[in-house]
Amino acid sequence: KDYVPLKEVSKRNRLSMSFMDRAQETKSLVAAKLFRIMAEKRTNLCLSMDTTNSMELLELASKVGAHICLLKIHIDIIKDFSKDFITNLVALAKEYNFLILEDRKFADIGHVVKLQYSQGVHEISSWADLVTVHPIPGPGIISGLKAALEELSQQDRGCFIVVEMSSQGNLNSADYKTAAVKLAMTHSDFVVGIVCQSSSLVPDPGLIQLTPGVKLDKGSDTLGQQYNSPEHVVLNGADVAVVGRGITEAQDIIGTVKEFQTRLWEAYEKRISPNE
Amino acid sequence: KDYVPLKEVSKRNRLSMSFMDRAQETKSLVAAKLFRIMAEKRTNLCLSMDTTNSMELLELASKVGAHICLLKIHIDIIKDFSKDFITNLVALAKEYNFLILEDRKFADIGHVVKLQYSQGVHEISSWADLVTVHPIPGPGIISGLKAALEELSQQDRGCFIVVEMSSQGNLNSADYKTAAVKLAMTHSDFVVGIVCQSSSLVPDPGLIQLTPGVKLDKGSDTLGQQYNSPEHVVLNGADVAVVGRGITEAQDIIGTVKEFQTRLWEAYEKRISPNE
Repeated sequence: KDYVPLKEVSKRNRLSMSFMDRAQETKSLVAAKLFRIMAEKRTNLCLSMDTTNSMELLELASKVGAHICLLKIHIDIIKDFSKDFITNLVALAKEYNFLILEDRKFADIGHVVKLQYSQGVHEISSWADLVTVHPIPGPGIISGLKAALEELSQQDRGCFIVVEMSSQGNLNSADYKTAAVKLAMTHSDFVVGIVCQSSSLVPDPGLIQLTPGVKLDKGSDTLGQQYNSPEHVVLNGADVAVVGRGITEAQDIIGTVKEFQTRLWEAYEKRISPNE
Repeated sequence: KDYVPLKEVSKRNRLSMSFMDRAQETKSLVAAKLFRIMAEKRTNLCLSMDTTNSMELLELASKVGAHICLLKIHIDIIKDFSKDFITNLVALAKEYNFLILEDRKFADIGHVVKLQYSQGVHEISSWADLVTVHPIPGPGIISGLKAALEELSQQDRGCFIVVEMSSQGNLNSADYKTAAVKLAMTHSDFVVGIVCQSSSLVPDPGLIQLTPGVKLDKGSDTLGQQYNSPEHVVLNGADVAVVGRGITEAQDIIGTVKEFQTRLWEAYEKRISPNE
């Protein structure tokens, strides 16, 4: 399908390129930052924390911070949210050199997401390096988020566009994905990458493929979520792999984080190796 | 298209049925409640408030409460959110007999929306009669929301499924809408209705068509939102019409609310009239 404006896209295949090389290909400051963090720390692991307790989140983040490039959270489930919590979280991100992804899945019209991004109790745009966005409302959702940043003079912010979901019976059709990728390409100054399961959806080496639904072994939960192995997702184009309960529910958290880090990084090195 | 399980659907055309008759057709307690409120108060007007200030919201809600059936808010944009605010809002809803719709547009997998619905600072399920849901993640999103309610033993709760959006360039394709309506029909104990622009998407008289993007005159804003007149949307199947800035930015708020109430209700009465 002819959804990619080819003149803007490097002819090199991102799957065989190093993260450091790809840092040169993006128009986004925060995407370049994430690429460099991955290369420096030798980790393409994103930890997803679905905890409702701020202390638990901070404790785990400080425990595993050295092994991840990205921490994905849901700020709206934290029961004891406070400004101090944000101060501490941002300090940890700085200390351990990871970025923060608020997995908000914005999905409203521009006028509303502008307010949801910058206002309210959580003031997401003031601390989240990255957020997730559903493309369903059309281009206005990107304009709305950008409008919020313009008022704040924030530049080192970006979003991932959710193009595929890993839940059973999701409604992301082929046409939906095509339109979503087009939206991402058109706004690649603000869109740092794409949330998806398959490499063909991320044609631009400057865009980052973020892939959730990763566990050490395949499986599914009772509410429709499906899982794949680290090697499987990296081979299918994952640049950053999102692991949640596979780590947070493990007996040996540090050991498990290290196993994910090693297996994901080795799969990435194998992927970019010229001998493969 | 054969997406409707016909044996469950009344053969009567909802467009010619009164709200009181339709209250008999729903499996949802809260949908029946909303139908009765509309019939008793003679209003099918939903006010949408996008304010970031809790006092402003409460003041306007008490001013217009007598003229609306539903108040649609975005709790996550309120800067000075507090439990007292919720107590006051719920008291106003009781005093003026309207329901509260938190327009959250849930759009994540079941495990996550379960937490987003019941946990966090906002504890939405404890006070919002209704919420909005994007069907994109598949059936798991409904199971997740229901699972949160089961733990709370809440019964008088429900959701609207967002099947169409009124923003320019939205990605809601025909197939997407078909799958979304199917999801709504399958879960009509919890799904009270459908957010859409066209009557053909709401086949069941027990489901409520909620239509946003309504102003006294046609037009659009600078972030891609498009508007239609009260008569146009009711003729196109709107049971409840959502009006936002058309009221909140009016010079004469009470006068404008009354004009919307009258025009929307007269359009509804005309629609169900046997002479039409």
